[in-house]
Amino acid sequence: MSSADFLSKLAQLLPIAQVYTDPVDCYAYAYDNSRIFHAPIAVVFPLNTTEVQAVIKLCNAHKVPVVPRGRGTGTAGGSVPEAGGVALSLERMNKIISVDPDNRMAIIEPGVLNQELQDAIKGVGFFWPPDPSSAAYCSIGGNLATCAAGPHAVKYGVARDHVLGLKAVTGNGDIIKTGCYTSKGVVGYDLTRLLVGSEGTLAVIVEATLKLTPLPKHTGGITAEFADTASCARAIAAIMAQPYTPSALEFLDNGALNLIRGRHKNLLPENARAYLMIEVDGAQQEIIEATQAILQACQVDGLIEAKPAEDTKALWAARKALSPLLKDIAPKKINEDIAVPVSHLPELLTGLEKLAAQYKISNVNFGHAGNGNIHVNLLVNPDNADEMKRAYECLDDVFSLVLSLQGTLSGEHGVGMAKRPFISREIDETTINLMKAVKLTFDPNNILNPGKLFPK
Amino acid sequence: MSSADFLSKLAQLLPIAQVYTDPVDCYAYAYDNSRIFHAPIAVVFPLNTTEVQAVIKLCNAHKVPVVPRGRGTGTAGGSVPEAGGVALSLERMNKIISVDPDNRMAIIEPGVLNQELQDAIKGVGFFWPPDPSSAAYCSIGGNLATCAAGPHAVKYGVARDHVLGLKAVTGNGDIIKTGCYTSKGVVGYDLTRLLVGSEGTLAVIVEATLKLTPLPKHTGGITAEFADTASCARAIAAIMAQPYTPSALEFLDNGALNLIRGRHKNLLPENARAYLMIEVDGAQQEIIEATQAILQACQVDGLIEAKPAEDTKALWAARKALSPLLKDIAPKKINEDIAVPVSHLPELLTGLEKLAAQYKISNVNFGHAGNGNIHVNLLVNPDNADEMKRAYECLDDVFSLVLSLQGTLSGEHGVGMAKRPFISREIDETTINLMKAVKLTFDPNNILNPGKLFPK
Ligand SMILES: Cc1cc2nc3c(=O)[nH]c(=O)nc-3n(C[C@H](O)[C@H](O)[C@H](O)COP(=O)(O)OP(=O)(O)OC[C@H]3O[C@@H](n4cnc5c(N)ncnc54)[C@H](O)[C@@H]3O)c2cc1C
Ligand SMILES: Cc1cc2nc3c(=O)[nH]c(=O)nc-3n(C[C@H](O)[C@H](O)[C@H](O)COP(=O)(O)OP(=O)(O)OC[C@H]3O[C@@H](n4cnc5c(N)ncnc54)[C@H](O)[C@@H]3O)c2cc1C
Repeated sequence: MSSADFLSKLAQLLPIAQVYTDPVDCYAYAYDNSRIFHAPIAVVFPLNTTEVQAVIKLCNAHKVPVVPRGRGTGTAGGSVPEAGGVALSLERMNKIISVDPDNRMAIIEPGVLNQELQDAIKGVGFFWPPDPSSAAYCSIGGNLATCAAGPHAVKYGVARDHVLGLKAVTGNGDIIKTGCYTSKGVVGYDLTRLLVGSEGTLAVIVEATLKLTPLPKHTGGITAEFADTASCARAIAAIMAQPYTPSALEFLDNGALNLIRGRHKNLLPENARAYLMIEVDGAQQEIIEATQAILQACQVDGLIEAKPAEDTKALWAARKALSPLLKDIAPKKINEDIAVPVSHLPELLTGLEKLAAQYKISNVNFGHAGNGNIHVNLLVNPDNADEMKRAYECLDDVFSLVLSLQGTLSGEHGVGMAKRPFISREIDETTINLMKAVKLTFDPNNILNPGKLFPK
Repeated sequence: MSSADFLSKLAQLLPIAQVYTDPVDCYAYAYDNSRIFHAPIAVVFPLNTTEVQAVIKLCNAHKVPVVPRGRGTGTAGGSVPEAGGVALSLERMNKIISVDPDNRMAIIEPGVLNQELQDAIKGVGFFWPPDPSSAAYCSIGGNLATCAAGPHAVKYGVARDHVLGLKAVTGNGDIIKTGCYTSKGVVGYDLTRLLVGSEGTLAVIVEATLKLTPLPKHTGGITAEFADTASCARAIAAIMAQPYTPSALEFLDNGALNLIRGRHKNLLPENARAYLMIEVDGAQQEIIEATQAILQACQVDGLIEAKPAEDTKALWAARKALSPLLKDIAPKKINEDIAVPVSHLPELLTGLEKLAAQYKISNVNFGHAGNGNIHVNLLVNPDNADEMKRAYECLDDVFSLVLSLQGTLSGEHGVGMAKRPFISREIDETTINLMKAVKLTFDPNNILNPGKLFPK
């Protein structure tokens, strides 16, 4: 069938306002935060499961790719229509179906924004722990499909820990229901967590039952400054080795600090070359005890000062200031998201410094240190071919370092298109082949986000 | 190939002390706590992954069933060699490979007993939250394969929440490695949680990387007595609707209380007809606040008394006394493990009382009320045909009630053989067919625990 014929069939499935085919309209659905660009032939905006199913059945019948899309904030190219086909935007399926404080649950459509959910449940005393920095404009469907996390994952876990059940449409248009509406359940295989983190390659999530967490009673903060990265890394490991788990433990390296200092004069201490922002939560006494224990763990050679933060909101000011600065200075930076066991952070962070020096690449490292999850940013200019070559060589060595330290190539952003070339270094061929076979059971014609997540 | 030929090939794979073929030796591997009995043609005791792989490859080549077995404490017939074949006991793969307190992890072989692990990590300040009452004699491999839980799941979650990675051998003898050695990781599909709870039907777990949890600083206890089940159920729902999550919230109904009173004179208050044992943990002040909040939530019509327990060990005495009593009085009782959302516990528990009266079946209900997970025991005598008929009719109505209350047929014990006839009432056909297709990607010849978990 010709592309025009397919598009006319597609147009018959949905009201006119729910289908874009004009390339100008489709443009905004051709990229995500990876900035890779591939235009879809159409964008559809289903309003319910039946419409999702109809679109997928049509695409499956004609072997046309379908790329599920939340809000396109992913950083790995997951929602980019690389193989063309139809971008299936869930943004108009954005109802909070129910909030059930008695059972600590909510049922939502996938297009609900993370922040919208948080706002809706805060009043009844709850939050949903996955808290990517993009919370204000990323969808819960996207959070689930990437197994998103954020600063609070160190204490509260990631998306997969906070979902009880899903409704989803597979690649051949079957509607499946996974999980249960109870806090425990072991009937059948755990397809819920299999879908979480599958980056839209197995099924389109059309509804989710989420587990809610009571808001902590109180929060407290601590900041700590260090004379060098190595001492800071030792402090992180020491903090995580004692029993009081912080509710957030975020790290900024010297590069990040310099960037922030350049723009915001008095936000940060003068001589620090590595910085920790630490949050603790719970009952008041727990906060006091945890603060003491964490201040104690910070007492490593190289500590400049560690102290309770007077204002926990101010605690995050430096971190919040960073992202826009990074974009200004290097709009096309290479942005990685590796993780290592926390005890290996000293070797990782000093190793990163060495590699950056060796390859003459300016880099900035920061992130969720309590999970050993570091955002490694190589600040490159894509017009400088020589720099780009060095950057990719450097990246190769970064990944080797990470894997030699029992780490993983992605702590929270996923594979998408960006990390495909490296996957085989982390996962063996037998296991990858099994994953491919699993994919085909959900999506026999390989129409759902084809090519993503697997090695290329 | 004849059975004798197969057995002689099997005997060549392993040293003689690692293969049983004498029916007398095999007898102990023919049943589990479900008391269903089917003898294997052989029992093998591999010592390492290579030996597991060799056995599975041989069985796969000859299409002989392989039934993985931990310690046979399962209550659903999961480890019973229903279709004959080889019982693959993991009991001799029982090494704790490493304990890594700095990263809060341990790597274990599957035959390590739950209690052995707890003992090994307690000294360095940790516990592994899944705590089935069978902890002293069930294996971690079995805990993972059933997604086991226990009293502390209400606060700490179930087995799937406490595993980071697995090594496993699939039905065609492939060795796969899933997950990572970091607290976060999103590279590839989450095969780890797919294997958890799969009851030995997808792959044999030969190694597991477990996430450890710091031991709580302090624990406190509360007991509450009620004049009837309905008021107790309302208190449970109220306790779970306030923000302080208890670390355990266990329920005993009137039947359970009477059994215990009959044997242990002064263990329980005289006039209570429903009883809660509640544990709280954390910092001292948190315990004080939680105790106040929970005592407050217990103030429902029908409360006789709620009070802090002086001795948290004594708190569990009544619960511990129950299991052996139940076995004495009805060795072949029907033992279910349903769960409903906590807000529906009042309807569930009063509904169970009505059904027991209607069908004239004496029953005892108790369990992990904070998860809405109730062990429903029908105390039947299998020699009484009429009673058995009524019991199965009653059970049918129990399941209908549970499902009408948005519940699940099994909170922690799994499906195995025992719950197969009812699965289709909880999971729709499309989803079950997809699960079957997933099974075949792991186990193309359907040799791994064939027939288990799926509707019959
Ligand atoms: C400034 C900024 C900060 C960020 N911070 C974090 C952070 O702290 N932690 C973190 O984890 N991530 C972070 N991210 C990455 C991103 O926001 C998350 O991955 C988020 O979960 C993506 O949501 P989305 O709705 O934008 O999904 P999209 O980008 O649209 O899609 C992401 C993937 O999910 C799939 N998908 C989307 N919806 C569905 C659905 N309903 N069914 C099936 N598949 C679906 C897509 O096909 C794609 O593969 C950040 C991004 C930005 C731009
Ligand atoms: C007195 C008593 C109290 C109990 N209390 C609880 C409780 O509170 N909570 C709870 O959840 N359960 C409870 N149980 C049930 C049981 O103890 C658990 O299900 C336990 O996890 C089973 O462990 P096991 O080693 O005995 O496994 P088995 O009974 O040998 O096997 C259970 C299932 O797992 C599979 N399996 C075992 N090992 C492996 C492996 N290495 N790889 C792949 N598959 C494997 C088997 O094929 C089978 O399907 C209780 C049982 C008893 C007898």
